[in-house]
Amino acid sequence: RIKASGLKLQLCTNETQATREKFVKKLQGMGFDISVAEVTAPAPAACRLLKERGLRPHLLVHDDLVPEFAELDKTNPNCVVLGDAAENFTYANLNEAFRLLIGMEKPVLISLGRGRYYKETDGLKLDVGAYMKALEYACDVQAEVVGKPAKTFFESALAELGLPPEQVIMIGDDIVNDVGGAQRCGMRALQVRTGKYRPCDENHPHVKPDAYVNNLAEAIDILLQQL
Amino acid sequence: RIKASGLKLQLCTNETQATREKFVKKLQGMGFDISVAEVTAPAPAACRLLKERGLRPHLLVHDDLVPEFAELDKTNPNCVVLGDAAENFTYANLNEAFRLLIGMEKPVLISLGRGRYYKETDGLKLDVGAYMKALEYACDVQAEVVGKPAKTFFESALAELGLPPEQVIMIGDDIVNDVGGAQRCGMRALQVRTGKYRPCDENHPHVKPDAYVNNLAEAIDILLQQL
Repeated sequence: RIKASGLKLQLCTNETQATREKFVKKLQGMGFDISVAEVTAPAPAACRLLKERGLRPHLLVHDDLVPEFAELDKTNPNCVVLGDAAENFTYANLNEAFRLLIGMEKPVLISLGRGRYYKETDGLKLDVGAYMKALEYACDVQAEVVGKPAKTFFESALAELGLPPEQVIMIGDDIVNDVGGAQRCGMRALQVRTGKYRPCDENHPHVKPDAYVNNLAEAIDILLQQL
Repeated sequence: RIKASGLKLQLCTNETQATREKFVKKLQGMGFDISVAEVTAPAPAACRLLKERGLRPHLLVHDDLVPEFAELDKTNPNCVVLGDAAENFTYANLNEAFRLLIGMEKPVLISLGRGRYYKETDGLKLDVGAYMKALEYACDVQAEVVGKPAKTFFESALAELGLPPEQVIMIGDDIVNDVGGAQRCGMRALQVRTGKYRPCDENHPHVKPDAYVNNLAEAIDILLQQL
């Protein structure tokens, strides 16, 4: 319905357990008409950043994300890229990433998101942000976060759309990462009352959405009515 | 030499990879005349704290440390005790500790030290402090640290000695955990120029030892000369 109306569309996700190709296939399987170019995700954003700065990453990420970094030189690493590595968050792998960082003259830690935890069918799991904090503390370094709510991440989505922020509306379920991040870039933002949404979000001390909608379909209804 | 002189002696260690019994056996094997009662260590201090507050711990610690907590009820845990768990720092164990904490109405995290890393024969390892930070961030909680440099830890060592702080001298190699911690309790503190000591410690922004000594033997020489 968005595409049929002539509006432009870009999906912004912090998904780092799979390549965009896999992510898009999953959405297509659910009936969404989406292409890889319409997805802004942390790994491709990190790749651009690494290329620009001539960085050679050591990856501590999910196996399924590794192909996103195929083009980059990973020999003799001069930075560590941390994603939601899930089962790859072993004691040995964390020590290895730590040793590389602490051995650098100026440690560079790039984190694909700063989430605290998420829910899977078998329960809550620590997210990348927790492991980022562990390495930040051990190495006395501040990670550079790629992904929502980083301003640069939303800016790259805007660049893909070719639109200024005041012409774009973010729709999301996460009060801080979706709504707050987009608003700080000058976009308006709707919060859906589904998914991660919690009633207490409506009393958030710092972030106030431009409007609430009960679900994604309702958000689209409202947007299209106003065209 | 200290004991022969009539001075009292207490060892303060942040060792959490073994019971005091094992630790003392190791020192005895090196020729030190030491008993378990002369060792102040985080695990027994944590046990006292848990008993006082009626806490039932879930342990994420080294296997060899578990016997220190034998007397405590560990069913239906209402707090998490974190030590340097080494190989027990698995993804599954960290998620389990996290889930218990996030499920508590008021999460209680007790950390046996806040070290960033340490060196073993096969290289640097992340210490308990890094994992403490990960859980603190994920659960939005502040850990209670037992062990050096916590004031309560030095106070319990003073209680064992039965002496006021101004009659006690701390000798250690760690500028913050040994020297700084002891001084904040009103003790004087010597830093030895061995072990963890680094020349840059002598320019530490906050902590200044009462004196430097080249090694432990020299510290004892100086103390005994002044009796």
